[in-house]
Amino acid sequence: MSEDSPIFLRLNFDGRPRFGPGKAALLEVIRDQGSITRAGKAMGMSYKRAWSLVEEMNGMFAEPLVESSRGGADGGGARLTQAGVTVLAAYRALEQKAAEAGVAEMAVLRGLLGDMSERR
Amino acid sequence: MSEDSPIFLRLNFDGRPRFGPGKAALLEVIRDQGSITRAGKAMGMSYKRAWSLVEEMNGMFAEPLVESSRGGADGGGARLTQAGVTVLAAYRALEQKAAEAGVAEMAVLRGLLGDMSERR
Repeated sequence: MSEDSPIFLRLNFDGRPRFGPGKAALLEVIRDQGSITRAGKAMGMSYKRAWSLVEEMNGMFAEPLVESSRGGADGGGARLTQAGVTVLAAYRALEQKAAEAGVAEMAVLRGLLGDMSERR
Repeated sequence: MSEDSPIFLRLNFDGRPRFGPGKAALLEVIRDQGSITRAGKAMGMSYKRAWSLVEEMNGMFAEPLVESSRGGADGGGARLTQAGVTVLAAYRALEQKAAEAGVAEMAVLRGLLGDMSERR
């Protein structure tokens, strides 16, 4: 699912930092770009913001989700650990299952939406 | 489900204002308190913020979700319309179904959480 998904899930584990669509997307872009800095740039995020989200994710689970090596011409590489791959997959599966389970409710809600274009 | 729920759902209908746990909770407190002002106060929210959230909700659906009368000693009363009751029920049912559908994934994620107390 993408940022256009009708349902965003944000997970809240007993006062830990939350895990939601922004962190999931960041993990995917790090996986694809092989670098936290490049992933941040691709998402229009500052270097500092991307690193701070990674540190938050790494700190909330028993194992880090992202492994990185600093240095080198492009600021070092990064990749998802096995824990990172598992967390991302579980989150995406959860999104998918929630969307499937909620089809009837989403239809009810969509049926109640107004025509915004008429109001302008 | 409450603010302590492990899964927050935020609904995103094609660029409209989003509908999530804060608005759902506000609808419930308005229903119970019979007043937008009192509901905002009970939720530690400014009068202005509570009214602005209600206006956002009323504008995104074809029918308003909250009906209010200004004036009177306590600033007028408010109640949920039929559309408000239906939207709130659909949202709570969606949360419940998402939690049920995602039990296995939530167990995987919980199993990967670190012991935060050890890290301090």
